[in-house]
Amino acid sequence: MKRKWLFGLLGVVAVLAFPMSAFAADGEVTNTVLEVGLNSLFVFLAAMLVFFMQAGFALLEAGTVRMKNAGHVAGKTVLTLGITVIVWWAFGFGFAFGDGNSFLGTTGFLFGGDGAIGSFSVFSEVGVSLNLMFLFQMAFAAVSLAIACGGMAERAKLSVYIIFGVIFTIVIYPIVAHWVWGGGWLGNLGMQDYAGSTVVHLTGATAALVAALLLKPRLGKYNKEGKPNSIPGHNQVLTVLGVIILWIGWFGFNPGSALTPLGDGFFGYVLMTTNLAAAAGGVAALLISWMILGKSDIPSMLNGVLAALVAITGSCAFVDPWASVVIGAVAGVLTFFTARWFERSGLDDPICAFSVHGIAGVWGAISTGLFATPELAEKTGVGKAGLFYGGGFEQLGVQVLGVIGTFAFVFVLSFLVMGAMKYLTGLRVTEEEEMMGLDISEHGTYGYPEQMSLLNSSAKNTSV
Amino acid sequence: MKRKWLFGLLGVVAVLAFPMSAFAADGEVTNTVLEVGLNSLFVFLAAMLVFFMQAGFALLEAGTVRMKNAGHVAGKTVLTLGITVIVWWAFGFGFAFGDGNSFLGTTGFLFGGDGAIGSFSVFSEVGVSLNLMFLFQMAFAAVSLAIACGGMAERAKLSVYIIFGVIFTIVIYPIVAHWVWGGGWLGNLGMQDYAGSTVVHLTGATAALVAALLLKPRLGKYNKEGKPNSIPGHNQVLTVLGVIILWIGWFGFNPGSALTPLGDGFFGYVLMTTNLAAAAGGVAALLISWMILGKSDIPSMLNGVLAALVAITGSCAFVDPWASVVIGAVAGVLTFFTARWFERSGLDDPICAFSVHGIAGVWGAISTGLFATPELAEKTGVGKAGLFYGGGFEQLGVQVLGVIGTFAFVFVLSFLVMGAMKYLTGLRVTEEEEMMGLDISEHGTYGYPEQMSLLNSSAKNTSV
Amino acid sequence: MKRKWLFGLLGVVAVLAFPMSAFAADGEVTNTVLEVGLNSLFVFLAAMLVFFMQAGFALLEAGTVRMKNAGHVAGKTVLTLGITVIVWWAFGFGFAFGDGNSFLGTTGFLFGGDGAIGSFSVFSEVGVSLNLMFLFQMAFAAVSLAIACGGMAERAKLSVYIIFGVIFTIVIYPIVAHWVWGGGWLGNLGMQDYAGSTVVHLTGATAALVAALLLKPRLGKYNKEGKPNSIPGHNQVLTVLGVIILWIGWFGFNPGSALTPLGDGFFGYVLMTTNLAAAAGGVAALLISWMILGKSDIPSMLNGVLAALVAITGSCAFVDPWASVVIGAVAGVLTFFTARWFERSGLDDPICAFSVHGIAGVWGAISTGLFATPELAEKTGVGKAGLFYGGGFEQLGVQVLGVIGTFAFVFVLSFLVMGAMKYLTGLRVTEEEEMMGLDISEHGTYGYPEQMSLLNSSAKNTSV
Repeated sequence: MKRKWLFGLLGVVAVLAFPMSAFAADGEVTNTVLEVGLNSLFVFLAAMLVFFMQAGFALLEAGTVRMKNAGHVAGKTVLTLGITVIVWWAFGFGFAFGDGNSFLGTTGFLFGGDGAIGSFSVFSEVGVSLNLMFLFQMAFAAVSLAIACGGMAERAKLSVYIIFGVIFTIVIYPIVAHWVWGGGWLGNLGMQDYAGSTVVHLTGATAALVAALLLKPRLGKYNKEGKPNSIPGHNQVLTVLGVIILWIGWFGFNPGSALTPLGDGFFGYVLMTTNLAAAAGGVAALLISWMILGKSDIPSMLNGVLAALVAITGSCAFVDPWASVVIGAVAGVLTFFTARWFERSGLDDPICAFSVHGIAGVWGAISTGLFATPELAEKTGVGKAGLFYGGGFEQLGVQVLGVIGTFAFVFVLSFLVMGAMKYLTGLRVTEEEEMMGLDISEHGTYGYPEQMSLLNSSAKNTSV
Repeated sequence: MKRKWLFGLLGVVAVLAFPMSAFAADGEVTNTVLEVGLNSLFVFLAAMLVFFMQAGFALLEAGTVRMKNAGHVAGKTVLTLGITVIVWWAFGFGFAFGDGNSFLGTTGFLFGGDGAIGSFSVFSEVGVSLNLMFLFQMAFAAVSLAIACGGMAERAKLSVYIIFGVIFTIVIYPIVAHWVWGGGWLGNLGMQDYAGSTVVHLTGATAALVAALLLKPRLGKYNKEGKPNSIPGHNQVLTVLGVIILWIGWFGFNPGSALTPLGDGFFGYVLMTTNLAAAAGGVAALLISWMILGKSDIPSMLNGVLAALVAITGSCAFVDPWASVVIGAVAGVLTFFTARWFERSGLDDPICAFSVHGIAGVWGAISTGLFATPELAEKTGVGKAGLFYGGGFEQLGVQVLGVIGTFAFVFVLSFLVMGAMKYLTGLRVTEEEEMMGLDISEHGTYGYPEQMSLLNSSAKNTSV
Repeated sequence: MKRKWLFGLLGVVAVLAFPMSAFAADGEVTNTVLEVGLNSLFVFLAAMLVFFMQAGFALLEAGTVRMKNAGHVAGKTVLTLGITVIVWWAFGFGFAFGDGNSFLGTTGFLFGGDGAIGSFSVFSEVGVSLNLMFLFQMAFAAVSLAIACGGMAERAKLSVYIIFGVIFTIVIYPIVAHWVWGGGWLGNLGMQDYAGSTVVHLTGATAALVAALLLKPRLGKYNKEGKPNSIPGHNQVLTVLGVIILWIGWFGFNPGSALTPLGDGFFGYVLMTTNLAAAAGGVAALLISWMILGKSDIPSMLNGVLAALVAITGSCAFVDPWASVVIGAVAGVLTFFTARWFERSGLDDPICAFSVHGIAGVWGAISTGLFATPELAEKTGVGKAGLFYGGGFEQLGVQVLGVIGTFAFVFVLSFLVMGAMKYLTGLRVTEEEEMMGLDISEHGTYGYPEQMSLLNSSAKNTSV
């Protein structure tokens, strides 16, 4: 990575000097101009894939809830995406990546395009158009918020998504991103978090946990003895589609974080470890569900794929292929058991946001402290080898510190924000509204009007 | 842009001379070959995104109609796509971009690949393989036809889509495209329409308007007093998915129109204005619906996103980031009110094609006449600064002229074509067929056979 | 193609020597480094498109089955994808592309990344990072398995997908791939199969045929007189979405097989023939269904699109644009008739896998023996001109030999494997399980719990 920055620096210099220097002596564009263009195109593709993950989250969540809430859940994804775009432009990008101190950035608000490049010295060596970095990082922020909103499903008012979404994208996500990637204290300590197991996933999942705690379980989730009832999602086909889209989106997330297709095909290596982990997580979770439940469970398999992707997000650039299989499989199994344990403990997290993105995010952060190879740590220029490769406990310690710092910061801030909202306006729709569904209560129409009329008339007949 | 064409020209020369000149003295490919390859890859990605918009339209439309018509509506999108591909190859590309006069092109039919390059002097300086330009522009034509078909939903015979689709792709869309982008009179006047607010969206929407006028409202849309009844779409989740796909597809539409990732990252700038506008349009439309209706309305928000994207399509390369937020928000609000006004006025446009693509398309064309900055007009080499940037009324006048010319031409031609079809064969299925749904009437099977049998037996029980 | 390999070789040399030679005298990256990066990015995009085809297959299949099996069918696609990824990494890639003999590869197992490059001499000249070739080819293998699984729908146990999936990806698909593309005997004979009409589609379809034969028809598919009953799919909108995704995915499949965006835009040419064929196949199938059935049939049109894409997969790089229209249209019509014929003959192939991928795959292989032009055969460096272009029967003979060899090998091996499974454990769920649906029998929950409860209670009312 160090080496890459070196000629990346040349790239940015060339971008700034483009009108003058773009042509070599023989009238052709220079290699540096071509390189910046190539890198920018690479990041464009990666950003498109990550942006597409919004469709994945919309489908995953909508498929996992009941029909009466599905339009609301899908629609709010577009809303929170819109909020992220605007707030990230106005504030978030500056707090995350603007120049500042080791806690947060303080420049670069209302981002105006590549001309503003002087305020983003963390990107000055990347060899990619700043406009593209803006979009790529925006897509990451939107993923983190989508995860956070998972904990609110089927009972939070629409206004909660709006208000918390704005605050999350102004201060919560950008500050963590700054700590690790924007020149902040965790990055300076050498924390390995290639594409954001901690920054993106644990941050979003911790907010989801706070939401689930403050909102309390959905009506009917627990019986009188406190035992959980199953509330299956209404459409597994949409959930499957969502997971395949997320899987592909992750190929923008992780390999895209290489920021270049040049060098020795390193982004392809990251692609391979990412893909192997995802496959191992899905297969492992399916098999463990078969052993424990007696039937292979599709939602468990799908969560296994996602958990493995979350875990490998941080470690994809630091570990051997076989280790990525292990990390993915462990993530799939871990999420299966922790999701069941949280459910039995009284935490109603409808999309399993905290087990899939939080527990697996922590495992991902720790896994590099165990499996990082000396060669890959040196190649990326971040951190040291892990415990199993003779690195001792040093890197592992940094990783644990990063996890604890992130979790504590996000938990406290989210708790303060949502706690205040709960006190002032309430977070949750009324019982009656929850019974009729949030499509009606929040938006006045069903997402599935014809099917809901069948369901409602069937319910009436049954009750009669 | 001028500067870009300069070395683009070198690129095409190099393509033609490839077997001889591809290797520099040291046995490597030359920079010009690399540049053309890079641009071609960029346009490939952009074309894939625009092509994917067909999935977006299929879902948007299918989700917005009733279950009994959903298979038909989704399926006809594949049919009209197939028609566009063949007709564009045989005729449309030549009429739009072949060499000719300021009204239409007259060469390049039955396009045979890059060897035919001599007939397309409008592309001779672009520095992109002509095969790619063919596909990219084909994808635009397919979008325009998909919009036009939106006005026909739930009552037009399948044959109307086929016959009108063929004629639209031979003469209507290509001629407007030629006027602005193919060397025609509007382009020569300096009309600013970067990616087609006018060429693609207003053209399609005007045809949709004619279709809606000639087809008359759907059965049951208006009560005896002429007041509109709401006919909600059957599946908001699919509509949401369609809109997210369209949003992403637009990143091929607008930034892709830069045709290169080189230079100073200009496509990334276009990406940013496009994205900001979309977000602003969605959020603004949600809020205005909340104020007016008392409930935040998801379909209104989704139309707000699309309307903003339509508006920024023309202006994305000419305006400041803050202006893109304004343009998008205004588009979202404008479409909300005009859609309601058209509905109350007796125009039954089931997908709101004319308000989303027509009204917002006009607003997009006018917006560059207001907000175009001198720097960006100069950079793109198209037109002048807008009214708010000291450009006076000159550019605004050109934009208004372009809108009027396009609207009048498409309206008249579409009216003649569909009017003749109405007279000769009729445009609309029978009342009985419309009641049973076009899945059955046009194709003999339901798109949702199991769910429709429930719905039908429930309807029978109720009527008994 | 020959010419391309020449400087491709330089590329790989440069990759290996990257740390030393990446900088030219003036401190910039060299053209060869840029070229390898550009090609790798191209293959990345292509691989993403092909990977996305898994979503297409999941939707196509799920939409084509009944509601009670839809969650199972969609979910098993993720499972077989996971299996392919792991098995391809461990064994398949080595058997297919590792160095070895003309029957199979014997090196390169547990692929470790670009460092292992020495074992893959078939790729040594390609000018693309080996990591990317690994992923690209993995996506092809996953497509072939998805096709094979199509023949099992609605009656095979989940364990069949797992066990057969593992064996298929270890030995069946890789060996055929090795024969044609990995340095094996068919490639040495000059078989033209640009992106795998035979390798990918006929292989998968032959396994699907064996599965359909051994599994026997679904309950209720045939009445007492042996006449077929129609079992329509439950959701045409999802099927349409699946087909559009597959159409786009094919733009990675075929043009992506050029492995570079350089040269004279040849990948754009392949893109054009692919697209023209798809459109022609869909339109032709719709029209023929209209003529034969009296109603235009949407599933027939969709199968026509896919069949045309299958056929052009092998011939896309060898034929003129007009020939691609003919090849696509013939494929659409051929599949319409053969699908009906197979159904009437007692073969219950729910997704029409054998007619769409098998018959059209054979047609695709033969079509290059008829339509290959001398110029394109020379350009790609594979095979000779076809019968209609003065090439006589030579190339046609090679193509027929390839088809027969592939069909025989895959049929026999699949029959042995699935026959043994049938004897040992049985392939099929019980009648009772099939009646209740595989969502319940294999996974314990419905994919559509709310809708199935309506359907079940309606069925109970009706039976009472």
